[in-house]
Amino acid sequence: MQLQLATWPEVEAYLRARSGIILPIGSTEQHGPTGLLGTDAICAEEIARGVGEASGALVAPTISIGMAQHHLGFPGSITLRPQTLISVLCDTVLSLSRHGFTRFYFLNGHGGNIATITAAFSEIYAARSLGAERAAVKCRLRNWWQGQKVQAIAKELYGEAEGSHATPSEVAVTQFAYPRAIKRAPLDPPVAARGGFTDAEDYRRNFPDGRIGSNPALATPEAGRRLYEAAVASVAEDYAKWVAE
Amino acid sequence: MQLQLATWPEVEAYLRARSGIILPIGSTEQHGPTGLLGTDAICAEEIARGVGEASGALVAPTISIGMAQHHLGFPGSITLRPQTLISVLCDTVLSLSRHGFTRFYFLNGHGGNIATITAAFSEIYAARSLGAERAAVKCRLRNWWQGQKVQAIAKELYGEAEGSHATPSEVAVTQFAYPRAIKRAPLDPPVAARGGFTDAEDYRRNFPDGRIGSNPALATPEAGRRLYEAAVASVAEDYAKWVAE
Amino acid sequence: MQLQLATWPEVEAYLRARSGIILPIGSTEQHGPTGLLGTDAICAEEIARGVGEASGALVAPTISIGMAQHHLGFPGSITLRPQTLISVLCDTVLSLSRHGFTRFYFLNGHGGNIATITAAFSEIYAARSLGAERAAVKCRLRNWWQGQKVQAIAKELYGEAEGSHATPSEVAVTQFAYPRAIKRAPLDPPVAARGGFTDAEDYRRNFPDGRIGSNPALATPEAGRRLYEAAVASVAEDYAKWVAE
Amino acid sequence: MQLQLATWPEVEAYLRARSGIILPIGSTEQHGPTGLLGTDAICAEEIARGVGEASGALVAPTISIGMAQHHLGFPGSITLRPQTLISVLCDTVLSLSRHGFTRFYFLNGHGGNIATITAAFSEIYAARSLGAERAAVKCRLRNWWQGQKVQAIAKELYGEAEGSHATPSEVAVTQFAYPRAIKRAPLDPPVAARGGFTDAEDYRRNFPDGRIGSNPALATPEAGRRLYEAAVASVAEDYAKWVAE
Amino acid sequence: MQLQLATWPEVEAYLRARSGIILPIGSTEQHGPTGLLGTDAICAEEIARGVGEASGALVAPTISIGMAQHHLGFPGSITLRPQTLISVLCDTVLSLSRHGFTRFYFLNGHGGNIATITAAFSEIYAARSLGAERAAVKCRLRNWWQGQKVQAIAKELYGEAEGSHATPSEVAVTQFAYPRAIKRAPLDPPVAARGGFTDAEDYRRNFPDGRIGSNPALATPEAGRRLYEAAVASVAEDYAKWVAE
Amino acid sequence: MQLQLATWPEVEAYLRARSGIILPIGSTEQHGPTGLLGTDAICAEEIARGVGEASGALVAPTISIGMAQHHLGFPGSITLRPQTLISVLCDTVLSLSRHGFTRFYFLNGHGGNIATITAAFSEIYAARSLGAERAAVKCRLRNWWQGQKVQAIAKELYGEAEGSHATPSEVAVTQFAYPRAIKRAPLDPPVAARGGFTDAEDYRRNFPDGRIGSNPALATPEAGRRLYEAAVASVAEDYAKWVAE
Repeated sequence: MQLQLATWPEVEAYLRARSGIILPIGSTEQHGPTGLLGTDAICAEEIARGVGEASGALVAPTISIGMAQHHLGFPGSITLRPQTLISVLCDTVLSLSRHGFTRFYFLNGHGGNIATITAAFSEIYAARSLGAERAAVKCRLRNWWQGQKVQAIAKELYGEAEGSHATPSEVAVTQFAYPRAIKRAPLDPPVAARGGFTDAEDYRRNFPDGRIGSNPALATPEAGRRLYEAAVASVAEDYAKWVAE
Repeated sequence: MQLQLATWPEVEAYLRARSGIILPIGSTEQHGPTGLLGTDAICAEEIARGVGEASGALVAPTISIGMAQHHLGFPGSITLRPQTLISVLCDTVLSLSRHGFTRFYFLNGHGGNIATITAAFSEIYAARSLGAERAAVKCRLRNWWQGQKVQAIAKELYGEAEGSHATPSEVAVTQFAYPRAIKRAPLDPPVAARGGFTDAEDYRRNFPDGRIGSNPALATPEAGRRLYEAAVASVAEDYAKWVAE
Repeated sequence: MQLQLATWPEVEAYLRARSGIILPIGSTEQHGPTGLLGTDAICAEEIARGVGEASGALVAPTISIGMAQHHLGFPGSITLRPQTLISVLCDTVLSLSRHGFTRFYFLNGHGGNIATITAAFSEIYAARSLGAERAAVKCRLRNWWQGQKVQAIAKELYGEAEGSHATPSEVAVTQFAYPRAIKRAPLDPPVAARGGFTDAEDYRRNFPDGRIGSNPALATPEAGRRLYEAAVASVAEDYAKWVAE
Repeated sequence: MQLQLATWPEVEAYLRARSGIILPIGSTEQHGPTGLLGTDAICAEEIARGVGEASGALVAPTISIGMAQHHLGFPGSITLRPQTLISVLCDTVLSLSRHGFTRFYFLNGHGGNIATITAAFSEIYAARSLGAERAAVKCRLRNWWQGQKVQAIAKELYGEAEGSHATPSEVAVTQFAYPRAIKRAPLDPPVAARGGFTDAEDYRRNFPDGRIGSNPALATPEAGRRLYEAAVASVAEDYAKWVAE
Repeated sequence: MQLQLATWPEVEAYLRARSGIILPIGSTEQHGPTGLLGTDAICAEEIARGVGEASGALVAPTISIGMAQHHLGFPGSITLRPQTLISVLCDTVLSLSRHGFTRFYFLNGHGGNIATITAAFSEIYAARSLGAERAAVKCRLRNWWQGQKVQAIAKELYGEAEGSHATPSEVAVTQFAYPRAIKRAPLDPPVAARGGFTDAEDYRRNFPDGRIGSNPALATPEAGRRLYEAAVASVAEDYAKWVAE
Repeated sequence: MQLQLATWPEVEAYLRARSGIILPIGSTEQHGPTGLLGTDAICAEEIARGVGEASGALVAPTISIGMAQHHLGFPGSITLRPQTLISVLCDTVLSLSRHGFTRFYFLNGHGGNIATITAAFSEIYAARSLGAERAAVKCRLRNWWQGQKVQAIAKELYGEAEGSHATPSEVAVTQFAYPRAIKRAPLDPPVAARGGFTDAEDYRRNFPDGRIGSNPALATPEAGRRLYEAAVASVAEDYAKWVAE
């Protein structure tokens, strides 16, 4: 059930039996010449909703803007500074914990969010550790691509051409979710270079078309469906185990 | 065009001719026994997308969590503190202004956001007024229900029963957008009481089922369509005029 | 009674019977070639003190610096960033609530403050809504020019030449309060242009002498007295009604 | 000249020849059974205005609420947290530096403000030291009671009964400034105890009527005039020397 | 060379040829019944100094207090909230970048710091990505225990008893560094339980004596020397490679 | 006992009998051509440890980076902005107060820290004064050079050549502590000029080699020992008296 499509009495009823919620979090950032700016948010949202259906868990509205400072050299990219994103996550968790939610499962679609989300968890816990009157909560971060089966499919389909940004896997999931928004453009070289980066200027210099190590031309909606289904199954299992702990 | 469904070269091309963007902003908060928690975000998002199609403007991802502290007495409601929301809006506008966007049109679905969004505009302008090196930008706040025609339809259909929270108008728009999520529940009294409020406890005491002055049972998807179409037309006109100034 | 001229035992005695306080808040910003930089603070302060006398309410010290980023293109203007002003208002209300004050009536002299003050109220309420141990408080914002009778006098005296910044009404009130500080200068055109603005540079470009839509040359101390008296009566009535709720 | 009573063209003219401004800063806090809550703000304001007249310097609006957390055990006391006050001072100085002011002379009426004001100066300087594009400014903090002559009068009149809070000197200055607000109450013991304090609870426990080491019953308006005149002379001299450096 | 033991002309000379600096960062937190509260800071400091000697790199003063909210259930543990630690790292890097340092190599001794340090890097980069005038910098995080050889020694010596908190490896390094501070106490069970944790209360409940999965009784100063030497060699190599990129 | 070299059970045992802790705080900043960048941290740390041994008090890890914005014109200097340092001190004190520490004795080695540390104390107290649930704590700031005997030795040895920055006294203490790091360089003039300063640029212009009013060439390790011993004795006495209050 999506929280956005529920009424408050429905949430009240839900909380009588359960106390977990899934929070999709993505980013709005360039994904190369053919990847959508919303790729990370779309993947997180779609898979979270699938998990919500599979497991009967509530799914919060997607946090669509994440920490993407390194992508600001490409038009359309948006970032929250880490300090801002931490405040957003603190307010969100605190709000929901007022109602009795105690388990916050962040389903993440963007590698660049990991450190800041993890720091936000510590900020949330720190309030209570330092003596504030707060209900005890547990937070978990899970990237949708973490599951063994998802990794295996990506490897089987793309091998080295999976790369690490604007990957064919994530592009495929968005093609499956939004077939009307499949984009084509020449990719040169087909498999982008690999490497590190610091700020937006450095990133654009190192990766002129935005991709890192990937060939997203290999993406297909069919592959997207396989990846989506594998991710839903793996995340649903992980979520179920975690809330049962 | 939705920003989330565009690629960065598409945004780059867009910016050659235009510099405006529409940013839907809503809230996740109770809307009475039958209204969806996502009502304000859904209305802003749907109408913004309609305007985007009608006017060829880019539409940013929806900011789904707003300033809703007064609704925290009802399960599922989430708030950002005003200071947090201000930071979110500052980071968002600053990110996009890096790429050449200069006109930020916030299409708002939640009365409780108005003051904080307006304060955020001042925070954004203040940086430049106080001497920071920033590109000049213009921000505008528009509530989807502001147009004369929208007001007239609401008045014609609901009269006094429109109220001010969990209104039949906004519920109707969500019914049109998500017919699968139409909820029914007894509303007692049919038209809720009116009044003011301060914090969450005060709000819940004054408005035990969450509604203020409204009878959302009058909402229908058909009315939703009329309101949606009137809102899209009115906002598109306002947007076009504003970016042409 | 002015808080500044009271002793703590007097405040303690006051709090045995009452719990409201009036907080004048203005701005320090240009008001055209003849208006005082302190216009907004002076109007709020004078009228608040009048109300205090009329109604026996305590009047806090005037917050003389407000949110005036758009006026920074004119020498002498000072702004607090919205985030700073929100913190000031939070600390002030929290301090006084410790003593038993529960009703905070902000008498405002500056349109540019409205959004930020309103956002500050939400920030104050949000702390409690999010679970902090705080006494419940109620805040109200009232602009001194809001009363029907004040509006009628302004309309009668100045019609369209009232404008919206450096208005003859506010200038008249300051002339009544500080007859020694009445300034004369040529105003060209007599009635200034109208329009909108964003940051300080934009404001100065649009309104080269600082006025918006007004002809403050029409102001007189006598008119100031009428406006002052009407404002005191109207605010005192509103205050009395509010604290009695 | 008071900034509040000046127009922007007057400030523009002032800045052609001078670049200094005097900023009175006080506090709103208990001053024992007979001292006014506004004592510190009143002393700073009155003396600053006297200096302004004597030296032709502009005088900013009084910052009436300072850092007074230790007085919150007594009704009517208000504090800004140090972090808030630092932000207020940063915004104020930055605003005025935009216009060409480069010398900021804070005339202080409250010992409890000293550390925070001094820290704020460092915060202001730090922005530039860390590389921000800012005009160079100089800030100075002066307590009104610092002058040798003022100290001598206090010693002559009150000796040990001067104490350190709710002193007869500061009470005398307020009696001179506001003869209509002279308060009488039994003081027991006549000379209050001395000592240290931490938070509000600790302060109230140590100093049950709010005074520290003082006997404000000795204050007279005549003494207030002598102290006021000595302070004005001493501060005017110090200010003139400083801006001439 | 330790920065603390250098003069500014020596740093100026250093910067003519090099622009990297090593910044040891640890934590002050419980390390079980026998581990020192300073374990993480000591390990980072000792190894950083060794690397400094081996490679001629400057070594900044140790940041001894890190993000350790989960350890606050045990006396002596100190934490910075993540937001505070991010500000500390931003100020530190910005200060040093003023002088011409461009490579910031954080040698970390505490797993709990990783997310926050990484988020701080993004905060630092984000300023520039969002348009602030800043010199370009590169930051790197390296945990002292990351090197292959260090891992191999730990595995060889302790196998499963290495665990993840209060490990024999880190205790051994402190025994080597501070032989006078070797502590003994019964450990029951010898190898502590494994598992996860959230806030301080949760941690203490799960791990009553503070250890996670480890048997620090196996530590010896001799093993400490081996680990220290392996770590110095591995970090020096990594540092040299990184600054040469 | 150094906290860093203690285990948590040792701290637990300590807290059964005592509740005070000594927190050395210094700075990393230029100290002229021959003084160490770590001078202020080293002096505070060494003397604090001496006091710890003399009095059996726990000594926290040294806060080595302080408020040194004015020294940023010289390579190697690092500053925390005052707001950052305040947050660091708040988190540190709040962490330790969770365990039962109630007396926080900051032994300071840097004049530039005084205002910010004092403001931080107010920030700490303010939380409780404004109603937060916090244990009551007491904080004290002591500069190592404050004792009468220390002052007498400095006067006897150096007279006017002591100056106020990069003093022979502080350099002597570091020579005693780190004889391997005694530096020599020509000082011209031998006794540096005196004066004030604002930001880093202003400081460097006024004091080209970093010293203020001092001749550190007079420093010797022997003098360092005398100063160290006098400081330890004086601080130990002050600490003992204070915790016994």
